[in-house]
Amino acid sequence: MLITHVLAELYDCGGMIEDPVALATAAKAAARSAGATVVGEYEVRYVPHGLTVAVFLAESHIVLTTWPEYRLTLLDVLLCNATMDYELVVASIKDEICPDGQIVTHAVPRNVAKSP
Amino acid sequence: MLITHVLAELYDCGGMIEDPVALATAAKAAARSAGATVVGEYEVRYVPHGLTVAVFLAESHIVLTTWPEYRLTLLDVLLCNATMDYELVVASIKDEICPDGQIVTHAVPRNVAKSP
Repeated sequence: MLITHVLAELYDCGGMIEDPVALATAAKAAARSAGATVVGEYEVRYVPHGLTVAVFLAESHIVLTTWPEYRLTLLDVLLCNATMDYELVVASIKDEICPDGQIVTHAVPRNVAKSP
Repeated sequence: MLITHVLAELYDCGGMIEDPVALATAAKAAARSAGATVVGEYEVRYVPHGLTVAVFLAESHIVLTTWPEYRLTLLDVLLCNATMDYELVVASIKDEICPDGQIVTHAVPRNVAKSP
């Protein structure tokens, strides 16, 4: 089974990327919109700024890492269910936390199987 | 600044991939061997089997997702410090948790900057 792991850079983000609750809320809403199930979350606050917000899913994970000094968010979305719409998840998060920004997306195919 | 986000599939793994403590221990040791600082961890156990183990770093994260039915581990390593040796981290984890397996690596360049 091939699944797609999406990494994306979100540039020109606003102040919301300094709010861990807003980031987690956006990631959870996006996951649920695709039919995924949220099973946990974790937050790291860096000094002097920057966050990692991870949302754990029955279908794997979403991790957001922010660099406020660059107005940048790094997005990492793995949905281990090939029928779920990962593009919807990425677009939903971008629209919520960085609506006026630019996005660069890397879609990496991953082969879930007994051998390469 | 360009950094490298590594995704890797580890095939033909043994029973250690069903042990969340062993996975977290391997990830933390690998991170520390590259000079990274561990700041947290999180674990998800799926039913009937499979794990997600996340280790949070001052330099971002390592996530391992296992599929015991395929003897497979999906590895996700982001080190937000361009001077750290991500190849060492990936090799250390592979050597510890899946020494006799095969690895397929995707090295994704990520542009940490104010614009693409």
